[in-house]
Amino acid sequence: MDRLRLRFSRVGADAFLVSHLPNIRYLCGFSGSAGLLLVEEHRATLITDSRYTYQAREEVRGARLLIARRGLNRALGELLKGRRRVAWATGHITLTQKQALEQAVGKRVRWVGDRNAVEELRSVKEPGELANMREAAQLISDVFGRVVRIVRPGISELSLTAEVEYEIKRLGGSGPSFETIVASGPRSAWAHARPSAKLLKKNELVVFDQGAILRGYCSDLTRTVFVGRAPSRVREMYRAVLEAQQAARDAVSPGVRAGDVDLAARKSLGKRGLASYFTHSTGHGLGLEVHEMPRLGKGEETVLEEGMVVTLEPGVYLEGFGGIRIEDDVVVTAKGAADLTTATREFLEL
Amino acid sequence: MDRLRLRFSRVGADAFLVSHLPNIRYLCGFSGSAGLLLVEEHRATLITDSRYTYQAREEVRGARLLIARRGLNRALGELLKGRRRVAWATGHITLTQKQALEQAVGKRVRWVGDRNAVEELRSVKEPGELANMREAAQLISDVFGRVVRIVRPGISELSLTAEVEYEIKRLGGSGPSFETIVASGPRSAWAHARPSAKLLKKNELVVFDQGAILRGYCSDLTRTVFVGRAPSRVREMYRAVLEAQQAARDAVSPGVRAGDVDLAARKSLGKRGLASYFTHSTGHGLGLEVHEMPRLGKGEETVLEEGMVVTLEPGVYLEGFGGIRIEDDVVVTAKGAADLTTATREFLEL
Repeated sequence: MDRLRLRFSRVGADAFLVSHLPNIRYLCGFSGSAGLLLVEEHRATLITDSRYTYQAREEVRGARLLIARRGLNRALGELLKGRRRVAWATGHITLTQKQALEQAVGKRVRWVGDRNAVEELRSVKEPGELANMREAAQLISDVFGRVVRIVRPGISELSLTAEVEYEIKRLGGSGPSFETIVASGPRSAWAHARPSAKLLKKNELVVFDQGAILRGYCSDLTRTVFVGRAPSRVREMYRAVLEAQQAARDAVSPGVRAGDVDLAARKSLGKRGLASYFTHSTGHGLGLEVHEMPRLGKGEETVLEEGMVVTLEPGVYLEGFGGIRIEDDVVVTAKGAADLTTATREFLEL
Repeated sequence: MDRLRLRFSRVGADAFLVSHLPNIRYLCGFSGSAGLLLVEEHRATLITDSRYTYQAREEVRGARLLIARRGLNRALGELLKGRRRVAWATGHITLTQKQALEQAVGKRVRWVGDRNAVEELRSVKEPGELANMREAAQLISDVFGRVVRIVRPGISELSLTAEVEYEIKRLGGSGPSFETIVASGPRSAWAHARPSAKLLKKNELVVFDQGAILRGYCSDLTRTVFVGRAPSRVREMYRAVLEAQQAARDAVSPGVRAGDVDLAARKSLGKRGLASYFTHSTGHGLGLEVHEMPRLGKGEETVLEEGMVVTLEPGVYLEGFGGIRIEDDVVVTAKGAADLTTATREFLEL
């Protein structure tokens, strides 16, 4: 919160209204589903409703608690009496919310847009956060190691998904960090396929894309395996994707632009004539949300800093045939990228 | 989509921009995570990116497909050339999106706010949707029936959560419709407790609040059980909550205001001196999202219509002691509320 307060003078505000729940959790620990956090120069207030009284008392640190009896906005209005300039994150305020807030708060408050203030703070992880993220990454690596053992012709994508999510919970995660993807055969060419009742067949690629939440922090891991013995063409494609991922990993360093990491993966695939089959970005930040800053995409100007956590996940997708994606989570250190996920990247033919 | 077009003249627009993903899915079937749907008088266009090319080709009905190469907003800008007045849902457009859209689209387009257009359509379910919802409700009822068998002292809330979510998948659901709640003992007094590593003990209440997604549609079921033989005070509280739920059920009918259903539950608990322990609304609409229109809360003016699906979930929460909540999903029919969920409402002492 103090780091957020340092921005007050820059944006010319005397308070900051935080409405996005992961940002609220980051700043004061509250994990409920309804809340507003007002950060002022010398105090902070979490406003929530009576469903969360007990939970908020247990969770909230660094802010006092205000249980709103007649709506969060109205309580905020009371609190903002006398305030002149309040900053908000324009990416998290809808037009409806804007209208409701203006109505509740009155006209004396001037709203100042500060788009990514908390997200920028969140992108650089503190040691305690990194410890959680390392555990979340280890957990999902262990889950993959268990589930991959039951891959065989005749088992359905949905059963494998169920196993992934069951193991996440069994190993102590609070749940998947996004809808688990298990996509086989031609369906593996859909970068964002939903798992279906389709049964795995011999001689098919299978993409597993899964993540776990542990103490609020997300992991995200993709591995691609083959059912049976793969033809040499498939093995070469796998090797090309692995090389591209390594090229991205080698490019990661504090001071490097995010877009240059993406470019490294793209160039590497280009050497194998596969650049046009790589149809998405190389990676994204990871933390309390599964997609955070920075994005590792074409031309992204964000400069990497020590402590940022990103995914590296190049892939190639051939319609009608299948897809291969390899994804790990890494933390940016002074010495470059350090892996958080630990699952083997060897090509598994099962 | 034609029902949406009927609103064009009312709001004075010649097109409608849909940006909220569940609304896009409702209108054209697309279930990907990036898209904009432009509904015009004589055509509709789904704009998405290249990750979803194959999926969109398979899923989209009633709209042509436009794969944006340089951002969805820019593609929309091209499409809107010549359009004068376009409606959007103010609850789903953030200030950042507004700015980006205005920049991409130019100044000739005038934006018209229409807050809940698609949500209102979605609140009344069509027969095909009801069939899906009945199955989703049956599925979660079956899941509860299986999981309740393993309730015993010494098992953790998290293990029970894992079992719930595993059974959801095993029985064919695509996943939980929200983070499953298993809360025992004093923790059951938190209406929105996260499951923890806490072990169940003898002589405790346990609240199970769980839902499944099946073919995109959500169910939501709460049952409260007792580990061991319950004291008569607890049995009486359970009976009071059950009566309150029945009072709400009896109040449901086409033409009735949502607030009056809430009032019926509240009055019923009032007769037992428990009204002040009922700290949330009586229920909410349910469909492609787990919280939809209408809300069954204090003073809500929405009038119930045949085909609406809502939860009925009164509860009482005593800090330090525990909570009891009973929740079913019902559809509004000409004859009143018809249950979709089928799990027994008998008080289970396990």
